[in-house]
Amino acid sequence: MNYYARPVAHLIDELARLPGVGPKTAQRLAFYLLNAPAEVARNLARAVVEARDAIRYCSVCGNLTDADTCLICRDDRRIRAILCVVEHSRDVVAMEKTRSFKGLYHVLQGVISPIDGIGPEQLAVKELIQRLGSGEVQEVVLATNPSVEGDATALYLARLIKPLGLKVTRIAYGLPVGADLEYADAITLGKSLEGRQEI
Amino acid sequence: MNYYARPVAHLIDELARLPGVGPKTAQRLAFYLLNAPAEVARNLARAVVEARDAIRYCSVCGNLTDADTCLICRDDRRIRAILCVVEHSRDVVAMEKTRSFKGLYHVLQGVISPIDGIGPEQLAVKELIQRLGSGEVQEVVLATNPSVEGDATALYLARLIKPLGLKVTRIAYGLPVGADLEYADAITLGKSLEGRQEI
Repeated sequence: MNYYARPVAHLIDELARLPGVGPKTAQRLAFYLLNAPAEVARNLARAVVEARDAIRYCSVCGNLTDADTCLICRDDRRIRAILCVVEHSRDVVAMEKTRSFKGLYHVLQGVISPIDGIGPEQLAVKELIQRLGSGEVQEVVLATNPSVEGDATALYLARLIKPLGLKVTRIAYGLPVGADLEYADAITLGKSLEGRQEI
Repeated sequence: MNYYARPVAHLIDELARLPGVGPKTAQRLAFYLLNAPAEVARNLARAVVEARDAIRYCSVCGNLTDADTCLICRDDRRIRAILCVVEHSRDVVAMEKTRSFKGLYHVLQGVISPIDGIGPEQLAVKELIQRLGSGEVQEVVLATNPSVEGDATALYLARLIKPLGLKVTRIAYGLPVGADLEYADAITLGKSLEGRQEI
């Protein structure tokens, strides 16, 4: 049964490709775009194409940028001795929102994941080692996700970087702020105990 | 603080205008579109513009269509004596999915809602009465939402249509299939009792 005119069906299909958007949500978004003023739909389409055309990876750190190097790499108030290694550009945004990191970033563009056929050579690992070769960096903060793959990648990088004589750190495991001991999983709570700090 | 390059920020803003899409989801969608193959982003943008350009309201019933009249109005297997009045095109899809309605539709493009300044003259009420004038229709099913506005609109239309000597019905209130009496609200349960049918 064909419930939609062809262009509507096609729009719903394309919207349903977005992450977290199922057929129901895609239908709701499509009807919104078709009933809203034409400008709303046109502006969205233009923003998608313009962003996709303008945005590339920063030639230094791999973050998303509309210039050759990103806003952070160009900012001379940042501390160049500390480098934070993250999986994706979105993690740079998450770190920046903490306002507690003043160093530079290196975006790996993923994690080591043998099951998906992703090894170090598919990631920006070579670029990272080259960057460290300049002697400017003194500490590397490994901020890959606290997942199996993220941990494995951090361990791999630590083994690669330590021989260069640099300080290598890993972001802390522990309880999220506002959490409840009672509902914390045992592994997290265990890590939180291991990582206890004197007050 | 500026976390994103300008085209990325603009894309996030445009995505966040979509219904049910907050800043977090907009950011996730934007990063997906920027990291996916360029074709994914381009196809989405094209589908939005093409659908918006191709789609108009059916000249007969007001449903969305890419031709002068919609698929349903053109389908000569549909029973022309029954007309189902709904608020929006998306409600036509919902009704069609039941596979229990074989008549035609009339899309009001909204409901009477004085608080939003929407009266009968902002809706396709005049067109409905004109359609009923042809003498083809024998029953009008009022399938506006079971909300205060939907009920008021149904009541308004019933008063308008009954003097024309047509049968006017309203879709049934009652418990949703699979629901639990214990958790049903009292008004719904009351309506369900009122509308009881002999078995």
